[in-house]
Amino acid sequence: MDSLDVARIKKDFPILERVVNDKQIVYLDNAATTQKPTSVIEKINDYNRFSHANPHRGAHILSVESTKIYDDAKEKVKSFINAHSTEEIIFTRNTTESLNLIAQSYGREFIEKGDEIVITISSHHSNILPWQRIAKEKDAILKYLYLDKDGRLPMEEVYKKITKKTKLLSIEGMSNVLGTIHPLKEIIKYAHNMGTKVIVDGAQSVPHIKIDVKDLDADFLVFSAHKMLGPMGIGVLYGKKEILESMPPFLLGGDMIEYVSEQDSSFAPLPFKFEAGTQNVEGAAGLLEAINYLENIGIENIKLHEEVLTQYTLEKMMNISYLDIQGPLDMENRGGIISFTIKDVHPHDTATILDSYGIAIRSGHHCAQPLMHYMGVPSTSRVSFYLYNTLEDADKFLYAIKNVRKWLGYGS
Amino acid sequence: MDSLDVARIKKDFPILERVVNDKQIVYLDNAATTQKPTSVIEKINDYNRFSHANPHRGAHILSVESTKIYDDAKEKVKSFINAHSTEEIIFTRNTTESLNLIAQSYGREFIEKGDEIVITISSHHSNILPWQRIAKEKDAILKYLYLDKDGRLPMEEVYKKITKKTKLLSIEGMSNVLGTIHPLKEIIKYAHNMGTKVIVDGAQSVPHIKIDVKDLDADFLVFSAHKMLGPMGIGVLYGKKEILESMPPFLLGGDMIEYVSEQDSSFAPLPFKFEAGTQNVEGAAGLLEAINYLENIGIENIKLHEEVLTQYTLEKMMNISYLDIQGPLDMENRGGIISFTIKDVHPHDTATILDSYGIAIRSGHHCAQPLMHYMGVPSTSRVSFYLYNTLEDADKFLYAIKNVRKWLGYGS
Repeated sequence: MDSLDVARIKKDFPILERVVNDKQIVYLDNAATTQKPTSVIEKINDYNRFSHANPHRGAHILSVESTKIYDDAKEKVKSFINAHSTEEIIFTRNTTESLNLIAQSYGREFIEKGDEIVITISSHHSNILPWQRIAKEKDAILKYLYLDKDGRLPMEEVYKKITKKTKLLSIEGMSNVLGTIHPLKEIIKYAHNMGTKVIVDGAQSVPHIKIDVKDLDADFLVFSAHKMLGPMGIGVLYGKKEILESMPPFLLGGDMIEYVSEQDSSFAPLPFKFEAGTQNVEGAAGLLEAINYLENIGIENIKLHEEVLTQYTLEKMMNISYLDIQGPLDMENRGGIISFTIKDVHPHDTATILDSYGIAIRSGHHCAQPLMHYMGVPSTSRVSFYLYNTLEDADKFLYAIKNVRKWLGYGS
Repeated sequence: MDSLDVARIKKDFPILERVVNDKQIVYLDNAATTQKPTSVIEKINDYNRFSHANPHRGAHILSVESTKIYDDAKEKVKSFINAHSTEEIIFTRNTTESLNLIAQSYGREFIEKGDEIVITISSHHSNILPWQRIAKEKDAILKYLYLDKDGRLPMEEVYKKITKKTKLLSIEGMSNVLGTIHPLKEIIKYAHNMGTKVIVDGAQSVPHIKIDVKDLDADFLVFSAHKMLGPMGIGVLYGKKEILESMPPFLLGGDMIEYVSEQDSSFAPLPFKFEAGTQNVEGAAGLLEAINYLENIGIENIKLHEEVLTQYTLEKMMNISYLDIQGPLDMENRGGIISFTIKDVHPHDTATILDSYGIAIRSGHHCAQPLMHYMGVPSTSRVSFYLYNTLEDADKFLYAIKNVRKWLGYGS
């Protein structure tokens, strides 16, 4: 039934051998950040030990090698998401910077008074705040797509909110709180018919689901390396070439210029126009190797594996009477993220007690306060799976959550 | 005469053992990026293998450890530059982002029509373009401080250009092309008397000269880890607390908020207000260890060592008739950067020929086209020293440049 040899995969991740509170760590906080396989760690190590230099600007061998690693990483990302060319791939710091870049460049240039920007109520803060600011600056209107009681986005809501006035739709591929996977292709097609440009926040989806930007026809796609086995400090902005070309640069500085005089500057072509200053080549090296690792396993296999884990865990959780699960209970169009609350227990206590079992989960508002408010909960606990998690991990998690109430002195 | 045991230091840098074109590499491109000692490489390695997690938001042990590493790095940077508190230390992506942050936050908020912004003609593009944009947006005036024929900034130029109209002065601590060290303390005192806020671009100075922001009284100081033995993808913005507090946030997203509703948000206190999204903890870990390494050697000792190398090299270079040296020829207030051109030889050819000797230098406009234009040269070759360079490195460099013209078929 499972598609992965997880016992073998787990051996590739040194951190998972760590013992916490006399127990081997069970890492279930993958929606926050993922761990790195030895191949990624060694790639960064090798880069630092043998090839480190400032790329693009040097004639010496280290700079040439560094440039090649950087360019190879671009090429790898391009093929991973099936973009047309590396001109469409911008390396940023993370998803947050990618979204801010779009808001401050595309948004400031093209949003006008009275225009509507649409986002989901399940958006991450990084996909809310930049639009609040642009809406205020431009006297535009920020509208929300609301989810139904199962945590799903009904197409009726899309039909109602996205109109000819909608200049931009920015929507997550997968909710970082609920695990809901939105029907992006259908939504994008509808939005394009209304003349709406669509940004996909792929922070939670690109690491777990095959994304093909040509097939999806997204205008922008953003994601972070550190949620897909890669390093922190590097993220991706994909944009359609003709749109990126129409946008002013965001950060200004070295490497993104063509010619600079005292009072004026002209800018380099794509993708350099959006990559000011010394780029994070060790980050690019790590991202390159992370994608290699994911491709060797196969994203489709990872998805199937996560479905097995999620279905198993969800079913067991549904049988626990004092648990409330936020988000979809069935497996259709959902990923390996489960948010829940335990009756009478603060989610933070749940995470702390699970830590004493060596189990890493996250509790809080998950950078989605409007969703929390909409759902009427101040915070949730969240378990999130990845390719290295096993059914044994799920069992340990289930065992631990059954003990949380006892720990706190409740009967069961 | 020398203050460092360089033979021992060199052993700490694995990349310097590399053999290029049958020759052990001589790395003299330190103004572009510096190499990492084993302690920094291993710190990043250890972080990836044992402690990696998303900081600040988790109750589990990996997140707690990751938060501690991040906070320790802040504390280390604070004490390294002698800031008042870690609230004044913002981690950015690099110097370029730090400067863009100031321009887009402070600049957009406080620069008004007719205000003057002053920069030097020797500014790096990252300290030119953000001000060109703000000047255009605000109908403000961008003025330049010009250098004298020796590549020095005369105080008369400062007295002439900085007036009561000058809202901002943004000045490099050391020119990345000429190695000139400007008399910052005197300049800042004068600027403050005029009511001018001062930004110090410390990309080239912080790694090489002791900088004490209290003593200097700079309003802002920016620099990058990768030019001081640390990783790419992390930089620093220091700002005086009261100024940072008066500024609107730059990037918006997770971790920098207090409360988010559908249409409105309030922001977290310093330094979080300026740190949106998942931070680069492995970068912070590397920066922390890089500063440890620099402090163990002693910045003052590093400076003395670089002076020995630079004086030795400069004197030998001045005796080569077909060499033109740009920048100060005497050792007073200059760092270990020497720009030069060889008669009849394109600087790019110089760098390429030196690469065949295993010597890494840089040629080009060094992201300082206005300076190139001002000096009347399209580009230069640049050698730049750091703590691991030896007199033997300098001799190899000198030997190689004496052969460049022969390589190209000139008599000598």
